[in-house]
Amino acid sequence: MGETRYDTPQEAEAAFYAAFMKHDVNAMMAVWAGDEKITCIHPLSPVLTGPEAIRDSWVALFRNAPDMQFIISERSRMQDGELAIHIVEEHIRVKNQAPAAPVYATNVYRLTEAGWRMVLHHATPSPPPSKTDAPTLH
Amino acid sequence: MGETRYDTPQEAEAAFYAAFMKHDVNAMMAVWAGDEKITCIHPLSPVLTGPEAIRDSWVALFRNAPDMQFIISERSRMQDGELAIHIVEEHIRVKNQAPAAPVYATNVYRLTEAGWRMVLHHATPSPPPSKTDAPTLH
Repeated sequence: MGETRYDTPQEAEAAFYAAFMKHDVNAMMAVWAGDEKITCIHPLSPVLTGPEAIRDSWVALFRNAPDMQFIISERSRMQDGELAIHIVEEHIRVKNQAPAAPVYATNVYRLTEAGWRMVLHHATPSPPPSKTDAPTLH
Repeated sequence: MGETRYDTPQEAEAAFYAAFMKHDVNAMMAVWAGDEKITCIHPLSPVLTGPEAIRDSWVALFRNAPDMQFIISERSRMQDGELAIHIVEEHIRVKNQAPAAPVYATNVYRLTEAGWRMVLHHATPSPPPSKTDAPTLH
């Protein structure tokens, strides 16, 4: 899996969310660059730096994760020769549950010798639902 | 203020936090690029895009903000010719209050014709304190 090459940031991003949905740690880490500066901030979680800490976090996250579907909507994209920044909304649907509020993520990709790789995933909860929202229990 | 030129991302970042501490909306917006793709995500807040929405958010934030001091510690920095990404911890101290948990921020700067300008500020609360932490009342 480590030899997979992504020719665009979009391909790397598609692979990231595919690995997330499949709970596939090897596919997930194949999307990331291998250097010690890569950084991952899961929602309301500490800053993780380097492949080992980031891999461990996905192992733990996938261990308890239910089946889920992602629909990604892009809010903004910035790119130059070597860096690409995507700001996305992650609409995550867990089977047999009502849709949750989206997660906002800043995903950064860098053009490496092995193609485009993720170097930052910073995810953050969206605002708490207002009290006028319909209840999600059903 | 709009003519201020930042020759490095670090200068732009210093100006961003100086404006934040002074509650100076004009100085704050002088740090940002002027295009419609600039994006700001305050902690647990919606995604804001474009100078008008971002300016309005700082006006609202500064209106109710107490005096505060920032100590910024950098966690990671990535840069190529035109984009710079800084991942920082914002340690915010409000006068006469115990220190709060840090805020994590991804700050992205772009080299424009007017020097380095902020194009993304994505801020997120750090993990909730564990129950074993000392109480902050005193």
